[in-house]
Amino acid sequence: MCRWIAYSGTPVLLSQVLFQPRHSLIDQSLHSRMGVETTNGDGFGVGWYTRNADTPAVLRDVGPAWNNRNLLEVAHHVRSGLFFAHIRASTGTAVQQTNSHPFRRGRWMWMHNGAIRGFHRLRRDLTLAVDPALYPDIEGSTDSELMFFLALTSGLTEDPPGAVARMAGLVERVGHAHDIPDPLQMTVALSDGDRVWAFRYSSEGRSRSLYFSTEVNALRSLHPDAAFLRDISDETRLVVSEPLGDLPGAWNEVPESSYGIVQPGPDALHSFRPVA
Amino acid sequence: MCRWIAYSGTPVLLSQVLFQPRHSLIDQSLHSRMGVETTNGDGFGVGWYTRNADTPAVLRDVGPAWNNRNLLEVAHHVRSGLFFAHIRASTGTAVQQTNSHPFRRGRWMWMHNGAIRGFHRLRRDLTLAVDPALYPDIEGSTDSELMFFLALTSGLTEDPPGAVARMAGLVERVGHAHDIPDPLQMTVALSDGDRVWAFRYSSEGRSRSLYFSTEVNALRSLHPDAAFLRDISDETRLVVSEPLGDLPGAWNEVPESSYGIVQPGPDALHSFRPVA
Amino acid sequence: MCRWIAYSGTPVLLSQVLFQPRHSLIDQSLHSRMGVETTNGDGFGVGWYTRNADTPAVLRDVGPAWNNRNLLEVAHHVRSGLFFAHIRASTGTAVQQTNSHPFRRGRWMWMHNGAIRGFHRLRRDLTLAVDPALYPDIEGSTDSELMFFLALTSGLTEDPPGAVARMAGLVERVGHAHDIPDPLQMTVALSDGDRVWAFRYSSEGRSRSLYFSTEVNALRSLHPDAAFLRDISDETRLVVSEPLGDLPGAWNEVPESSYGIVQPGPDALHSFRPVA
Amino acid sequence: MCRWIAYSGTPVLLSQVLFQPRHSLIDQSLHSRMGVETTNGDGFGVGWYTRNADTPAVLRDVGPAWNNRNLLEVAHHVRSGLFFAHIRASTGTAVQQTNSHPFRRGRWMWMHNGAIRGFHRLRRDLTLAVDPALYPDIEGSTDSELMFFLALTSGLTEDPPGAVARMAGLVERVGHAHDIPDPLQMTVALSDGDRVWAFRYSSEGRSRSLYFSTEVNALRSLHPDAAFLRDISDETRLVVSEPLGDLPGAWNEVPESSYGIVQPGPDALHSFRPVA
Repeated sequence: MCRWIAYSGTPVLLSQVLFQPRHSLIDQSLHSRMGVETTNGDGFGVGWYTRNADTPAVLRDVGPAWNNRNLLEVAHHVRSGLFFAHIRASTGTAVQQTNSHPFRRGRWMWMHNGAIRGFHRLRRDLTLAVDPALYPDIEGSTDSELMFFLALTSGLTEDPPGAVARMAGLVERVGHAHDIPDPLQMTVALSDGDRVWAFRYSSEGRSRSLYFSTEVNALRSLHPDAAFLRDISDETRLVVSEPLGDLPGAWNEVPESSYGIVQPGPDALHSFRPVA
Repeated sequence: MCRWIAYSGTPVLLSQVLFQPRHSLIDQSLHSRMGVETTNGDGFGVGWYTRNADTPAVLRDVGPAWNNRNLLEVAHHVRSGLFFAHIRASTGTAVQQTNSHPFRRGRWMWMHNGAIRGFHRLRRDLTLAVDPALYPDIEGSTDSELMFFLALTSGLTEDPPGAVARMAGLVERVGHAHDIPDPLQMTVALSDGDRVWAFRYSSEGRSRSLYFSTEVNALRSLHPDAAFLRDISDETRLVVSEPLGDLPGAWNEVPESSYGIVQPGPDALHSFRPVA
Repeated sequence: MCRWIAYSGTPVLLSQVLFQPRHSLIDQSLHSRMGVETTNGDGFGVGWYTRNADTPAVLRDVGPAWNNRNLLEVAHHVRSGLFFAHIRASTGTAVQQTNSHPFRRGRWMWMHNGAIRGFHRLRRDLTLAVDPALYPDIEGSTDSELMFFLALTSGLTEDPPGAVARMAGLVERVGHAHDIPDPLQMTVALSDGDRVWAFRYSSEGRSRSLYFSTEVNALRSLHPDAAFLRDISDETRLVVSEPLGDLPGAWNEVPESSYGIVQPGPDALHSFRPVA
Repeated sequence: MCRWIAYSGTPVLLSQVLFQPRHSLIDQSLHSRMGVETTNGDGFGVGWYTRNADTPAVLRDVGPAWNNRNLLEVAHHVRSGLFFAHIRASTGTAVQQTNSHPFRRGRWMWMHNGAIRGFHRLRRDLTLAVDPALYPDIEGSTDSELMFFLALTSGLTEDPPGAVARMAGLVERVGHAHDIPDPLQMTVALSDGDRVWAFRYSSEGRSRSLYFSTEVNALRSLHPDAAFLRDISDETRLVVSEPLGDLPGAWNEVPESSYGIVQPGPDALHSFRPVA
């Protein structure tokens, strides 16, 4: 499977989040503690929003993140207030740039940890369900990209949680039609550059790990000496596959079958249920 | 588009064909004379049959052939009596290993120069026509790989020329249904390890260049001093996108709308017509 | 050899310079008109200064620039007022990231077109001349990187033109000691983030092409309708291996054996002579 | 550090050794048990001798071995009676093809696990000790390649054990001159296509693990039911960084400060001592 991280808040150098913390995402590429695999070396990607452009920039490559110099360069020179990063452990599909996350369409970015069980058998039926106008833009061969296109087909840009629920419902329906038990396993992050949606769900009710950071002002009370907490806004928030750093009280598990919204103003947490 | 070469005959080091001749395929990767593009630097591949294995070996990569050291190594150390080589100039689809030729399934190899016109619009309908049992094994995003899967769907392993004719007929029918004029442009090489089929066809009747080598005993009469002609069997034959070397009388154009079979015993040349 | 471009002036998206002009650098990677080779597909690099960091960011890779998606992404999302870009045609040394330009040390960037003649024979003596404290940081195997380290050894950060003159003098002296005629051929760009130095020199007095852009206010008088000229400052300047675009009067050849300085206030042009 | 394997004996498909055994080298690239790092994903290489060519073929690349399709292809289609394979975990130097093992010169191949301590400080002095006639052919930046060139300088092709002893002595002398304690840590494999030399040594006397396989006829007595033991000759021998498979009695540790020779006729084991 994979590991990922979504950051929203005070603009920082990407490296401050990706490389500096203890047990950073880059460290997780070699030594994941909570992932299905300890090594996530089958490609990586980072996508960031800036005020320079209508779309997020996406840098993706096929080697491991831990030894990639271009990632190091970009992370140490690009500042952003909303970015995604992802490290991949292939479950069998080719290691190629078009299979690395995050995926992008217009202003939207999508990344995923998990799998569609029996994807080899379900791939055709699921692909047929993609809007024919979107279909030609599928470039890779992963379940993750296909889930994005199915959510786009289901109205992602108008109603993100509804579209993801309909995508999940479709995957489960097609899976069951092929006698696949518990077809879907996912944590997904999604953004339009203003908000971040993060989903945790699996058909079997035992989803991959997902954590969100404690509110910054609460963390400041807990750790009045932590200097970096003074430099970031109250609204800064991280959502991650597994915790970074070692600050007690910093992380909260996203509950099973739920999704959160990181946004201007109070964030929100809702239950998630696939829509048939 | 691309350039390719198919060799059948006396086992030789791949380098004797790929690197040594004047205007070799590797030289064509930088300086094609007859291709749509002069540079073919968007990936390459070589596939060879040996007595060691049931399937051909396929080495493919994403960079240019002219500076690839692994290609150089393999070509100078592997000997084969039947091999394909291909250099790619992308017409837009991603430069990735799964888009490099030759494509393989079991004992069969396929490579292509040309394009399906309007492929972006036709891709979905053509993909739907692939046998659902084969569909999950499509790994890349090219028209070339899809043509292979359509030919496999049409009975390639039983009746190669018939299957290619049915594939071509389908592409034209789907193209015309989408108001695409002259949808197909192709030279294709195909092998099962014993025979090589080479097709030259385009809907508009102006196909990409394709040549086959003159029979070796005829060449020997023309060039009694050419030492290497003494080292290869009478049955040795090359089919190429553009001529190699500079031996007068060595090359013959494959006629428009035709296909040839290189095989034990006399080779054959037939006319080719898509089957609706 | 190679092609390169140096930009200094109003901050722009890198893509406005690298991709948009007719006969852009990216186009030159496939179809150089003035280079020794028409194809420059053996790696590329781009380096840019920002206010975010003490050092320039450097993105380098080993494939061709024309099909590299990460270059496209960065170029369309990063804005800079001083950047370098380079496309490589190897003269024999390995195609690897550490051989792609620009090279960086601290705030300094260096890129080169040309060659040290007989480099294979001179490499050891030239390497011995590098300051032992700098030596361990040599990562690649090109003459270009070694020239940078020799110039650093000769006081580059204190006196750039003097250091380059001493480097050139050393290369010629070592070359002559090995009976290499006309050992040095170079156009070099150099920057510390504030100024750009561009050198054109060859031992034989027939140097690779180099051009600098006409002053913007003069160009505005010539082309009052060219909208983009209104968006850039009077001080904006480009130095390039071969002209971009097709604006008459836009380009001036850097004279043989000379160097220019692009800087705040009036730019300067001086003669260049190696120092023995 | 790294992991490596050397095979000498009955010609087999490389895959029979590299992929098929439990805890194969490819598995070790993800899950090394005895290595300094559990992950060895910073490049790999395989080199094999054939009767087709005067030199061994060397296939090297920069990504992990576990997901490399070209390695898989070559391993399943190439048969050899003497081959090396190596997976790399960089200790800091660049991940590039010229830093992947095995290294080759003429008929000779070299691969290494370990490090020269303080290599950054010693690199220049050690490089100066390389024969000036060999120096220009150094392509990468590793201690491992430099050790090969120092051994070549010391007469490797005439007296392999003596040359390695002189190389080791030089590294220790230069290390001590720079106040580096225990400068050398190595297991090294070396071949000329007929014999394999394998060295285990470290200045501190606590060398990286190294094992050689038990004689095949002894293994047959222990395991009369192991079918594959009937297919290989009595002289077949493996030397490995850590054991493959799970056959009791199959592996013997190479003693500290010693080297073995795998050769036609009885193999040999000798003590090893650096020569000052």
